Amino acid sequence: MHDFELMRSLHKKNDTKIVLLVMDGLGGLPIEPGGPTELEAANTPNLDRMAAAGTLGQTIPVRRGITPGSGPAHLGLFGYDPVEFEVGRGVLEATGIGMTVSKGHVAVRGNFCTVDAEGKIIDRRAGRIPSDEAIPIVNKLQEIEIEGVDVDVRPVREYRFAAVMSGKGLSANIEDTDPQQTGVAPLPARALDSESEACAGYFNQWITAAREKLQSQPKANALTLRGFSTDPGLPQFPEIFGLRAGCIAVYPMYRGVSKLVGMELIEFEGETPEQEFRVASQRWNDYDFFFIHIKKTDSKGEDGNFEGKVKIIESVDAALPQLMDLNPDVVVVTGDHSTPARLRSHSWHPVPALLWAPETARADAEKTFGERACGRGGLGTIPATTLMPLMMAHANRLDKFGA
Amino acid sequence: MHDFELMRSLHKKNDTKIVLLVMDGLGGLPIEPGGPTELEAANTPNLDRMAAAGTLGQTIPVRRGITPGSGPAHLGLFGYDPVEFEVGRGVLEATGIGMTVSKGHVAVRGNFCTVDAEGKIIDRRAGRIPSDEAIPIVNKLQEIEIEGVDVDVRPVREYRFAAVMSGKGLSANIEDTDPQQTGVAPLPARALDSESEACAGYFNQWITAAREKLQSQPKANALTLRGFSTDPGLPQFPEIFGLRAGCIAVYPMYRGVSKLVGMELIEFEGETPEQEFRVASQRWNDYDFFFIHIKKTDSKGEDGNFEGKVKIIESVDAALPQLMDLNPDVVVVTGDHSTPARLRSHSWHPVPALLWAPETARADAEKTFGERACGRGGLGTIPATTLMPLMMAHANRLDKFGA
Repeated sequence: MHDFELMRSLHKKNDTKIVLLVMDGLGGLPIEPGGPTELEAANTPNLDRMAAAGTLGQTIPVRRGITPGSGPAHLGLFGYDPVEFEVGRGVLEATGIGMTVSKGHVAVRGNFCTVDAEGKIIDRRAGRIPSDEAIPIVNKLQEIEIEGVDVDVRPVREYRFAAVMSGKGLSANIEDTDPQQTGVAPLPARALDSESEACAGYFNQWITAAREKLQSQPKANALTLRGFSTDPGLPQFPEIFGLRAGCIAVYPMYRGVSKLVGMELIEFEGETPEQEFRVASQRWNDYDFFFIHIKKTDSKGEDGNFEGKVKIIESVDAALPQLMDLNPDVVVVTGDHSTPARLRSHSWHPVPALLWAPETARADAEKTFGERACGRGGLGTIPATTLMPLMMAHANRLDKFGA
Repeated sequence: MHDFELMRSLHKKNDTKIVLLVMDGLGGLPIEPGGPTELEAANTPNLDRMAAAGTLGQTIPVRRGITPGSGPAHLGLFGYDPVEFEVGRGVLEATGIGMTVSKGHVAVRGNFCTVDAEGKIIDRRAGRIPSDEAIPIVNKLQEIEIEGVDVDVRPVREYRFAAVMSGKGLSANIEDTDPQQTGVAPLPARALDSESEACAGYFNQWITAAREKLQSQPKANALTLRGFSTDPGLPQFPEIFGLRAGCIAVYPMYRGVSKLVGMELIEFEGETPEQEFRVASQRWNDYDFFFIHIKKTDSKGEDGNFEGKVKIIESVDAALPQLMDLNPDVVVVTGDHSTPARLRSHSWHPVPALLWAPETARADAEKTFGERACGRGGLGTIPATTLMPLMMAHANRLDKFGA
């Protein structure tokens, strides 16, 4: 029996509230041997109080040694084994900005780039043009018409956009056109199987038309496409777990993966932890489960900014009382993966996790929220996919298995 | 997707060096309740320094509670789930002494034994006759001719030999002829399915001929056969992980399993840790991955010699600087299983493991290499098969999974 079947057969109604608070890329590394990680260095009295009362552990996002992208890492937190349930980048990106990717649609992520007179890429991100420069350029691409298909194009952020092609007989097994280096021209869309040849052909027509529209641009005079993909038809989170689930996230990727699993995307203004927690308080009665996503821990990690990451963690901690005043029944605080400032990138290291549930969490000996303490914590080192069943159990939302 | 597929799709080139240092049967038990294990009793300043800088953990060789033989235990360390990938003892033994076991060949491990006038076994190991007594006896067996097949016989060590039968229509599902007790005669080779009947028949002809050749021997006047098996066709390690892999091991079993997974067997003289580490330094540029096997920790454990095992561990520690001076990027020190001197045998206990990688290992709070510290270590208690992906990650040889 698949673990989802177990959940479907055991979940029961309750009025308990669960919060999954994800600080993106939370896990870190010391800068100096023997020194603290970002989370250990941060002054987090509220998280430490929760750590003392709750149970600590470490999660493995995908498999040991595997560095996950954001999409797979979040699927894991939502209970979906990301090796079993693969979702393409194009679908994630498009869904995340509110585009619909239905069965038979093919979504792709686009980057504007700068090419020289010979058509060779000199800047893979078109000088990171700001969003307000990119929007009118995307609007020009929107005008392109290809016979036999519709291509919807929308800006994502800065030099990035998403495109969704709809029509008949489309298939998405197509290689990226991004050569992943400068000094060479963007590649054509190349089908990897015969079913995808028609779709690749349409995309190549579209690319040709797009190059004409872009040629007068000073920076964004060309584009590359990555992550051709279609709706993966994921089993739906509310049905698996019997939870009305709301997503409080700012960035498209996280909203995208939440939508794909069937969570409701909560619309709001702002992006600070206080603002996100306030949204939770405003919508507290509408959902059983809140996924709250904090992006900037990851961004600071990717910038190699140890102190910056520490400060973001501290800002989350400072805002926490507002969330805890709502009297949630179960709170998990964790990351989707590690992004040590020392490495300036996502990594494979286990992710610190804190399970707080005042009625049922079995306290371990650990009193602070940090990597070393989590490594000794009572949850052990567990697959990220097991957090959902644990939260369900602590929320008294699972029946006994067998008599 | 099989985890090997994940490795195949994610591995990338780098010039980093990985060392897997296996002290056979490393895990132990205290002699007195509350006392130290062999590893804890050993004075290991170099390993302790690596433990403080690195991350500790415990590995489960096969499954919790399962005591592994050497073959499965090493397959696990190489990343192969030994329950999924079964390799027969005959194949391991034959491959380990340089014999070729191809598809359709049937290999078997032989023991000389001593039988009385009635043909009943009185010594299952023929008085443990030394290798130089056994070699001429094996040469006699080499003369045997059976119509329809070839049988190649080679000495292994002391009373042990290996035989490989080649011919048409051979199948290896055949019961051991070793009754595993004295006072009874060796059993005939009995096929367990109809496909194996021809092969069992050939082996029984060969046994009859062998008994004639052996009847004048004072000790080795009979034989038993165990582990009938054929080439398992394992996926190849260098291809799965993208590593040029070299095996530095003295004993046939470990060389055998290394060869089966596609490692190169490095030829050398000597068997001390210093000698093995010197080989690594001599061949440092030829490989990305070195498997270095220390046998005597296991032998001392099987002898019930606690102090002897302690001394072997200390001799490895003393030689370690020679290895570390090569500046490897990732070193794992572990065992293939536990062999507590107290039990005088392999056991199912978790195996201490130390992961050292100066750039990326996340130090835990543990400062010494021993069972108790490993049980609290930051790696957690993990399947032995996950060490390979971890080593690959720390050697920066894996791409990100998903975007």
